[in-house]
Amino acid sequence: MVNEPASAVKPRFAEERADQIRRRLKAIEGQVRGLHRLIDEDRPCLDVLMQLSAAQEALSQVGKLVTRNYLEKCMTDALQSGSEEEQARAYDDLMAVIYKYRR
Amino acid sequence: MVNEPASAVKPRFAEERADQIRRRLKAIEGQVRGLHRLIDEDRPCLDVLMQLSAAQEALSQVGKLVTRNYLEKCMTDALQSGSEEEQARAYDDLMAVIYKYRR
Amino acid sequence: MVNEPASAVKPRFAEERADQIRRRLKAIEGQVRGLHRLIDEDRPCLDVLMQLSAAQEALSQVGKLVTRNYLEKCMTDALQSGSEEEQARAYDDLMAVIYKYRR
Amino acid sequence: MVNEPASAVKPRFAEERADQIRRRLKAIEGQVRGLHRLIDEDRPCLDVLMQLSAAQEALSQVGKLVTRNYLEKCMTDALQSGSEEEQARAYDDLMAVIYKYRR
Repeated sequence: MVNEPASAVKPRFAEERADQIRRRLKAIEGQVRGLHRLIDEDRPCLDVLMQLSAAQEALSQVGKLVTRNYLEKCMTDALQSGSEEEQARAYDDLMAVIYKYRR
Repeated sequence: MVNEPASAVKPRFAEERADQIRRRLKAIEGQVRGLHRLIDEDRPCLDVLMQLSAAQEALSQVGKLVTRNYLEKCMTDALQSGSEEEQARAYDDLMAVIYKYRR
Repeated sequence: MVNEPASAVKPRFAEERADQIRRRLKAIEGQVRGLHRLIDEDRPCLDVLMQLSAAQEALSQVGKLVTRNYLEKCMTDALQSGSEEEQARAYDDLMAVIYKYRR
Repeated sequence: MVNEPASAVKPRFAEERADQIRRRLKAIEGQVRGLHRLIDEDRPCLDVLMQLSAAQEALSQVGKLVTRNYLEKCMTDALQSGSEEEQARAYDDLMAVIYKYRR
């Protein structure tokens, strides 16, 4: 289903954006370890729910960066120079991004 | 805002449920590291979005366990033996659980 | 599944809250007819999506009022004076409210 | 913000798709009137929440049809033959579709 060819020349993620994403993922790892601690210390359920919500929001922010990248890089190529079939697949992919992967 | 008293006697999370949550958090940490790898390898955006979605779903599942625990332990106490003021706060907390923390 | 007894004495929805809900539903009916018009006039897709989003937000606001009512009236009764079985059902109902009906 | 020119020649919504959307909106109007009745009859809160959820799901389905139409008609034009500025706006619009209007 996912078969964008790995371009030999131009990376999908510009270095700056990739770094931004990596920093955020690092922070999310920390949040998940923090959740572990809350459970170990038997902290109030509402504290745990608040932290879970924060971690999910942080993942959503990463999702936004990746989605923007997807639109600008992969999807545009498919719609500009793709065959009719590739265009149709780009629409399906995009519908999946909007209705299946987005949270 | 969050001030359930730490019970000296009875933990908020039954040991079995706490273990279940810890195992899931461990798995989520692995998923987040996996995302890091996808970025390092410049993998297709859709792969990354799919993985992000999976990690968020896994956090939601943890949220469900914590919410069930919250309902059975903390909220029930407040509604059964709390003052009118404590009851009113329990409703506010519950509205926050439903409309603010839940994702 | 849903079998709260219809109380002969006390209505589930206080008159004032019921009126508030009815007014909002009236407004939502108008929004849906407005959407019909946007389609008839072949208006831009983004206008239509914005209007759809507004109608869903309005339904969510009604949902909040109904949920608050549910917590204060029905659920509290079940948790305070219900049998253990009725309490267990109240938790299941509440989990459905949070994870299935809420949007 | 929304200024797709109304094409004199080709409608944005193909007739068949417009009809499909109109039929669904008609059904949703009926659902909203049904909700009104549930409140008049003081029916259980969970019944009301279930119906609200069904109406929101029905609006989401209309949103899917409109979004697909948006992708195929409006957005593709902008990305294929638009200026760089129009392309940038198409991305912004799409991000709004995904993160602001979608529910």
